[in-house]
Amino acid sequence: MTDPRPDRRARLVAELENRELGALVVTHLPSVRWLTGYVGSNGVAVVGRAGATLLTDFRYETSAKEQVDPGCRILMRKLDLLAGVPEVAVELAQGGRIGLESAHLSMAQGQKLTQLLTDAGAESTGVTGVVEGLRVVKDAGEVERIRESARITDAALSRVVATGLVGRTEREVAWDIRVAMHELGAEGPSFETIVAAGANGAKPHAVPGDRVIPEGTLVVVDMGSIHDGYCSDMTRTFATGELPAELQRAYEVCERAQLAALAATKPGMGHGALDAVARDIIDEAGFGPAFGHSLGHGVGLEIHEAPRLAREAEGELRPGMIVTIEPGIYLEGLGGVRIEDLVVVTDDGCEVLSHFPKDPRAAG
Amino acid sequence: MTDPRPDRRARLVAELENRELGALVVTHLPSVRWLTGYVGSNGVAVVGRAGATLLTDFRYETSAKEQVDPGCRILMRKLDLLAGVPEVAVELAQGGRIGLESAHLSMAQGQKLTQLLTDAGAESTGVTGVVEGLRVVKDAGEVERIRESARITDAALSRVVATGLVGRTEREVAWDIRVAMHELGAEGPSFETIVAAGANGAKPHAVPGDRVIPEGTLVVVDMGSIHDGYCSDMTRTFATGELPAELQRAYEVCERAQLAALAATKPGMGHGALDAVARDIIDEAGFGPAFGHSLGHGVGLEIHEAPRLAREAEGELRPGMIVTIEPGIYLEGLGGVRIEDLVVVTDDGCEVLSHFPKDPRAAG
Repeated sequence: MTDPRPDRRARLVAELENRELGALVVTHLPSVRWLTGYVGSNGVAVVGRAGATLLTDFRYETSAKEQVDPGCRILMRKLDLLAGVPEVAVELAQGGRIGLESAHLSMAQGQKLTQLLTDAGAESTGVTGVVEGLRVVKDAGEVERIRESARITDAALSRVVATGLVGRTEREVAWDIRVAMHELGAEGPSFETIVAAGANGAKPHAVPGDRVIPEGTLVVVDMGSIHDGYCSDMTRTFATGELPAELQRAYEVCERAQLAALAATKPGMGHGALDAVARDIIDEAGFGPAFGHSLGHGVGLEIHEAPRLAREAEGELRPGMIVTIEPGIYLEGLGGVRIEDLVVVTDDGCEVLSHFPKDPRAAG
Repeated sequence: MTDPRPDRRARLVAELENRELGALVVTHLPSVRWLTGYVGSNGVAVVGRAGATLLTDFRYETSAKEQVDPGCRILMRKLDLLAGVPEVAVELAQGGRIGLESAHLSMAQGQKLTQLLTDAGAESTGVTGVVEGLRVVKDAGEVERIRESARITDAALSRVVATGLVGRTEREVAWDIRVAMHELGAEGPSFETIVAAGANGAKPHAVPGDRVIPEGTLVVVDMGSIHDGYCSDMTRTFATGELPAELQRAYEVCERAQLAALAATKPGMGHGALDAVARDIIDEAGFGPAFGHSLGHGVGLEIHEAPRLAREAEGELRPGMIVTIEPGIYLEGLGGVRIEDLVVVTDDGCEVLSHFPKDPRAAG
């Protein structure tokens, strides 16, 4: 497969020209990785008219040489990399304005870097969403990595639910998922696994606790793994026996909303309009206030990335976008349900990458 | 034990008065936790003359009520919490200037919040290191949590090295450490464990790979766990049999430097001067350029926090500070050695919290 990085950088430079910028200082590490291959905790990429440079420190000298493609120069600098940026940015911008990622520099860093660039005779400006906007559409290699990550997630959940949920603590189940992911070859979890039973399920971001999972309730399991840097994300909600009528109804409404949103996922669909497909069904069933988050989000090198599928979100789906579809209903004191698939938008619809069955009785 | 949070907030308000501020908008999550108890991914604390308020969103409503002490008000706001900050900050600052954590707001957030505060008729200014400066000295409860975290780290390493290192891959050993931490009750690792054998050990931030650990080299193991939110950090370097003369000498020099720095750790010692104690020994042995990082760092709710023990660092040690002492020598293509203890500064010296033996033959 052709190395995608030179093309990514070329598309970034074209986008910079649209914005009347000669170079961009990339400080968001997932974007640095996407553009250069660098994987580490301290790297800055400068991409401009005259080429690309990665700045990193002593600790990453050997690994940066292994990771970065030959089209990108590597420079070793002191721990505080920003001091080294102006010289490189001025060189690569060839007289153009220099963009700073204003969502990925602190106020203090932004002030310092702006001053250093001014001192070097360069004009700079804060910009947002430039590399993120390119990253929303995944190439074939990225789709394959995310597909494999989703496959590991499916397989890990299958292993763990095969032994049943009732009588184990949330924390035990979460740890068993962690072990299964490792044994299946994941680099790690893409976020801390959520296992939330009974009333704990009413917290969308519950932390697994030492409560023993009882019979006759819902258990929300939200999990994802990382494969070759790329994330997956999936939620299933299981019923541990007969449910109270309100939880049973919440499950059915949530599932109906999730399937309707999946069916509506295709190129041209508005991000806000897609959220509304699910939200309207939940609203009409009287659960509207209990669906307090948005429908979904992009997934890639980050577990949460653009686009956001939310009520007020602008923009529309395009082929190659990978997003979650995850409506939820949370009933304080009683329990919660969330059903989430990871999907890739295709030319005429979407392909669901999460294959674990959406059967609330799937946990023995 | 008395709840330390009201006193922490009172000390913060006193510090704010020193800086002619009426309130501080705290956006750094570890500092939000330290001041209020909130544990989640989306919280802002505003602490000022008229009291303290935590802002969070829908997803954390139930858990915030469980976590935050009654002296701090809790308000639910939309996902983007900054929009709700000005009203609260103006109320709590009682006419005083409002500080923003300029190291913990992005440029974009800082511009937005500054504008919102201006629109609300308030004056604001960026500040750095205010809460971090209070957090450097740990109280008795914090020392106990870190002591327990260090104990778990010791015990996890003991379990894993008992079965030997040679013939297993770096990744296998790192995973066994992960499992041992879990079984010993850790909340999780405080960072990704480093297991770096042979030439891989020359990378201070090496990632464990599928290389089988051979005989006759050094293996760097850098690890830490989290207990009740608090981190630990320890590095040991093991010899798998007879070493090449250069590695043997590097080990001895590093150990000598580490013991000398430990012996010099006491109240009043300068952060830069302590770094120099170790660095001078390594320099004199001719390994100076191979010790490319600083001597150590503070540890608490974060694995890296203030103070920094580095050549150019100002300030001095005070009783109750918890820091790492971790010189290293990295020889490209050959291997590396790093020896790291976690210590708490006492009234007349320091107490070492890492008890695993510093014996390179300790891995059978």
